[in-house]
Amino acid sequence: MPLNTRILLDNRPRGEASVSNFRIETVETPPLAEGQVLVRHHYLSLDPYMRGRMNDAKSYAEPQPLGEVMIGGTVGEVVESRHPRYAPGDQVVGMGGWQQYSVVDASQPGALRKVDTTHVPLSHYLGAVGMPGVTAWYGLVKIIDPKPGQTVTVSAASGAVGSAVGALAKARGCRVVGIAGGPDKCAYVKDELGFDDCIDYRQHRDYPSLAKALKQACPHGIDGHFENVGGMVLDAVMLRTNPFARMAVCGMIAGYDGQPLPMANPALILINRLRVEGFIVSEHMEVWPEALAELAELVGSGRFRPRETVAHGIESAPEAFLGLLKGRNFGKQLVKLV
Amino acid sequence: MPLNTRILLDNRPRGEASVSNFRIETVETPPLAEGQVLVRHHYLSLDPYMRGRMNDAKSYAEPQPLGEVMIGGTVGEVVESRHPRYAPGDQVVGMGGWQQYSVVDASQPGALRKVDTTHVPLSHYLGAVGMPGVTAWYGLVKIIDPKPGQTVTVSAASGAVGSAVGALAKARGCRVVGIAGGPDKCAYVKDELGFDDCIDYRQHRDYPSLAKALKQACPHGIDGHFENVGGMVLDAVMLRTNPFARMAVCGMIAGYDGQPLPMANPALILINRLRVEGFIVSEHMEVWPEALAELAELVGSGRFRPRETVAHGIESAPEAFLGLLKGRNFGKQLVKLV
Repeated sequence: MPLNTRILLDNRPRGEASVSNFRIETVETPPLAEGQVLVRHHYLSLDPYMRGRMNDAKSYAEPQPLGEVMIGGTVGEVVESRHPRYAPGDQVVGMGGWQQYSVVDASQPGALRKVDTTHVPLSHYLGAVGMPGVTAWYGLVKIIDPKPGQTVTVSAASGAVGSAVGALAKARGCRVVGIAGGPDKCAYVKDELGFDDCIDYRQHRDYPSLAKALKQACPHGIDGHFENVGGMVLDAVMLRTNPFARMAVCGMIAGYDGQPLPMANPALILINRLRVEGFIVSEHMEVWPEALAELAELVGSGRFRPRETVAHGIESAPEAFLGLLKGRNFGKQLVKLV
Repeated sequence: MPLNTRILLDNRPRGEASVSNFRIETVETPPLAEGQVLVRHHYLSLDPYMRGRMNDAKSYAEPQPLGEVMIGGTVGEVVESRHPRYAPGDQVVGMGGWQQYSVVDASQPGALRKVDTTHVPLSHYLGAVGMPGVTAWYGLVKIIDPKPGQTVTVSAASGAVGSAVGALAKARGCRVVGIAGGPDKCAYVKDELGFDDCIDYRQHRDYPSLAKALKQACPHGIDGHFENVGGMVLDAVMLRTNPFARMAVCGMIAGYDGQPLPMANPALILINRLRVEGFIVSEHMEVWPEALAELAELVGSGRFRPRETVAHGIESAPEAFLGLLKGRNFGKQLVKLV
């Protein structure tokens, strides 16, 4: 059986995560039982949610267990199969984790999904046509539900989720304004992703200043907002919302010391009759087929060309993940494994 | 024509409102034009929203103009009519303002509505079977939408809106827990209004302490919350919400200095996948008939017996209003004018 190098969570972070929280090891892949499939991973997805799993805190998801392979989405190729629906050569997406190979009980619902790479490159099934894309689709379509001509804003606009929010909102005839960190990301959001405008939040010291920039970029106010960050960005956006605006809450940071970051002016929820709704995409599996079909069409037709940042080799995953947490990636962060 | 004593907004409050913001005058009622009706007011409604109108700040409603009669809901009797649909003796509800009489252009949609006092006392059309009741109905039915057995909490539970939220939620088979200020109000909420429990927020110094009391009163968590207050109460409730809880935001106070009061932990919106929605009942006229029918049935059948605090004479309106702002009233605050 092939050797499998894999990365485990060794200990939990105190404060910032670091490479010392992880441990690497190489083991032989076990022989397959009936119904199992051996998948060789081509790409591993790195995503912000993983940081939350590294803590032992109560949240909507179980913590990542210590001493086990880090959780993560993967795309790859079936190399051996003892399941009738899968054959060597099949390209599949799954939750293989931070490792080169995974043994999957293929009859478990949702464990593996075959994908077609005729029009969509394999790696995009971890990003634009995968979980981040569906996350964008759910928040935009099911919560914000924008009408043509309305203005939609999105934070972390250059990221995997944010870029898909922009593409989906543009496809619906909206004015789309991104918020991102740094001039390079803002240029990418405008010039490559085709947003109508993008604001560099690092140019603003406080939320009233950021709100002024939003007023310029959104002359007709904000009808919908997709929140990946929270804090100052959310406070600024709320000041510029139109009556009956919808805010999809997908990500919320804490303060530097881990204490909750307050919302500055919740009375705006009443004053502007806002709807603010948090969601987790894995609780809405019913939308995945419709969402993936639209996302595959946008990517396959070339109307949505998201960038990827690719690290090489499973050993590079911890450093690449820490870079993602610091915003060093540009678009979807992947690790190429073959 | 009869003499009409009325109260005008003379100047805007700086900080706390006071009686010196108002001016009283007596004038003759003008002769009726074609299509107009003269209404003698029996009761004037005093409501917290009036305080917001006294400011000159941008909000969802226009400020109360200086030198004009204070806005306010009234019930009364038609004494003279030049409109074919109204005759002397008809009992009507309208927005007559802080005065003894009003001249109403009765053909204007929504200006007057005839009411039936066979089963519902006239004054209740300003409270439980009026705007406060419909406010409760909209937030509970259209936003919280509770299922039998779920737990619903409501702040300012002894007030006109809060008491109706409780009655409507009990009618839907919910566990209902109120939050109110002081032991007398809490006893009233439990013993007279029939809530399952009521928490005195004045017994709690901070929101974690209030959240502990909520945990005891809501052993299965909170599925829906009706917010009339904001601040510490909202922060405490959010800590005890179940996944997918709905929060209807009807009222939000500011801090003592007029600065916005922050929300302590907005990340709970994501962690518990909350829906938080602000609303103003006057923007949802389509629900009024259905809501009023249910409320009239609850009051008429005696299942909902809200208390009223009644001041006497138009001259007493400013003091009674200031008392309402300080929470001195018990249930719906009215001024009896005849």
